[in-house]
Amino acid sequence: MKNKIEHGKRHFIGVDLGGTKIASVLVNEDNLPLANVQMPTCPEEGQDAVMERIIASISELASKLPGGIDDVEAIGIGSPGPLDKELGMVVDAPNLKWKDVPVTSTIHVATGLPVYLENDANVAALAENRMGVGRGTKNMVYITVSTGIGSGLILDGRLYSGTTGGAGELGHVTVVPDGPMCGCGNRGCLESLASGTAIAKRAREAATRTAGSGILSAAGGKIDNIDAVLVSSCAEAGDPTATAILRNAFEYLGIVVANIVNLLNVEMVVIGGGVSQIGGMLFDTVRRVVDLRAFPFMAKDAKIVPAALGVDAGMLGAACYAMEKQSGED
Amino acid sequence: MKNKIEHGKRHFIGVDLGGTKIASVLVNEDNLPLANVQMPTCPEEGQDAVMERIIASISELASKLPGGIDDVEAIGIGSPGPLDKELGMVVDAPNLKWKDVPVTSTIHVATGLPVYLENDANVAALAENRMGVGRGTKNMVYITVSTGIGSGLILDGRLYSGTTGGAGELGHVTVVPDGPMCGCGNRGCLESLASGTAIAKRAREAATRTAGSGILSAAGGKIDNIDAVLVSSCAEAGDPTATAILRNAFEYLGIVVANIVNLLNVEMVVIGGGVSQIGGMLFDTVRRVVDLRAFPFMAKDAKIVPAALGVDAGMLGAACYAMEKQSGED
Repeated sequence: MKNKIEHGKRHFIGVDLGGTKIASVLVNEDNLPLANVQMPTCPEEGQDAVMERIIASISELASKLPGGIDDVEAIGIGSPGPLDKELGMVVDAPNLKWKDVPVTSTIHVATGLPVYLENDANVAALAENRMGVGRGTKNMVYITVSTGIGSGLILDGRLYSGTTGGAGELGHVTVVPDGPMCGCGNRGCLESLASGTAIAKRAREAATRTAGSGILSAAGGKIDNIDAVLVSSCAEAGDPTATAILRNAFEYLGIVVANIVNLLNVEMVVIGGGVSQIGGMLFDTVRRVVDLRAFPFMAKDAKIVPAALGVDAGMLGAACYAMEKQSGED
Repeated sequence: MKNKIEHGKRHFIGVDLGGTKIASVLVNEDNLPLANVQMPTCPEEGQDAVMERIIASISELASKLPGGIDDVEAIGIGSPGPLDKELGMVVDAPNLKWKDVPVTSTIHVATGLPVYLENDANVAALAENRMGVGRGTKNMVYITVSTGIGSGLILDGRLYSGTTGGAGELGHVTVVPDGPMCGCGNRGCLESLASGTAIAKRAREAATRTAGSGILSAAGGKIDNIDAVLVSSCAEAGDPTATAILRNAFEYLGIVVANIVNLLNVEMVVIGGGVSQIGGMLFDTVRRVVDLRAFPFMAKDAKIVPAALGVDAGMLGAACYAMEKQSGED
């Protein structure tokens, strides 16, 4: 990060709180990143230890500024949800094994700064909209497809988070009413059909049959070695079962994207997350299904593109969120 | 309409352009209706004749004001879509047999007033939000279930109409990927599963079999007499096939409502249109499916209620839309 610290600028810190790492960034009022720091989350050490690492990250970034923490205007935290934004609490984050953790007040007490908490997919959407591939679009959906599936909505130029901050739970919209069981307890959710976890599950099931023998041998004969990345490389090598599993998953994703186009008439759908790295086949399939199922007059206006900011979207978006909240833009 | 015309108030006219009738209303700045008028649409007489009747309706309402048309500030038109709002045109309205009709400019030339065109379901949503059952809610979806299915979205307190004004095409979200053919050319759209037309179609199919004999005899032995109203009265009389057809349709509607709750975290879902008159069974089924499929923390905040304004929602919402556009609130 080569952007220079300039006197007189406002500064913000964004923290992306994930299940494996805490990624934090210092930005100035132009959304330019000045420094960043990464620490392991180690949720097994308990919430106090995690909170201490968040605060240590913030201190380390603040120390880059001439006035230290006094030169920071506000802090944004992107966290897995659901959240209670009014109370500034993480209500339930299975990856962190957190329930009702008062993030905002703890960090505020430690730093003396205003702290703003928002869902991780929502801040990533904000980042892609303000400084990523969605720059300049007014209506945009950001979808992250990795082990799970989430989304964030930018509508009429603003982050839309719904009545209690829960909007964007795209992984749990029903796509096949009598489809496979989802981790949430329902059937046929998008996450049970198109996430990295779902792709791996379908491939493991196939590996017990003749059709999946290619996938199984690519996994060194070990079913547990099969994940979405392996399925993708099998498909690239021409394995028809792997190809069919991916196409199937991406068609379901395409149906949901088509539904979003019909419901929200967005001008851009940004797809990020680990599974989106599979690239061409995902985007081609989603595009085809959208052109088939969405109204042509809305489908033609909806660009479907890969995310630009990768794993940085969370921390950058959290910083951006803090700045916009602080500026009263939300 | 007993509201009095008061000196010094601003006035607006709202027109609901439907396939069978043109319903228009004169309101004051407090959204109080002062007079209304209804004329048949008779689209078979051609677009000029329809446009003349719209203009005649406006003149008749304006004549109630001391200064006539000079006392009217703006006109709102709710029309079937898709629309090109920038050009003020109805792009394609099969019910009217209209293609690329320049509504806004024609009415502006005839009246000299600002004219605002918006989708009929969108203005109905606005009416239910500003003066109907959704008054006071910030995030609300209005769904109209009749021969077709449409919707309008109020998000963060404002009518959300999307990038090119096409948002809310809820009738054409896919619910069953390999479901029945829809009029739009795709499979398994909500409209093909839960509209009045779909309910009648399922019942007509059943009437050719033993299970549907009760429905057939209620229709006087004539399959063509079977419509959603008849299916509803058969279900009320205890016919199990009619009951199953309705329950099935309402479960699909419930899935889409659950998806909206998960995606948009709305605080209210308002359901109107002819099929919603069936009442209890529709609302009970939708509620049950939402509680089953949407996240509990969002489902609990989402009231699911009947529309309050009935067939007046369109014209009232059109007037309200004109007032808000004129006041720069949009």
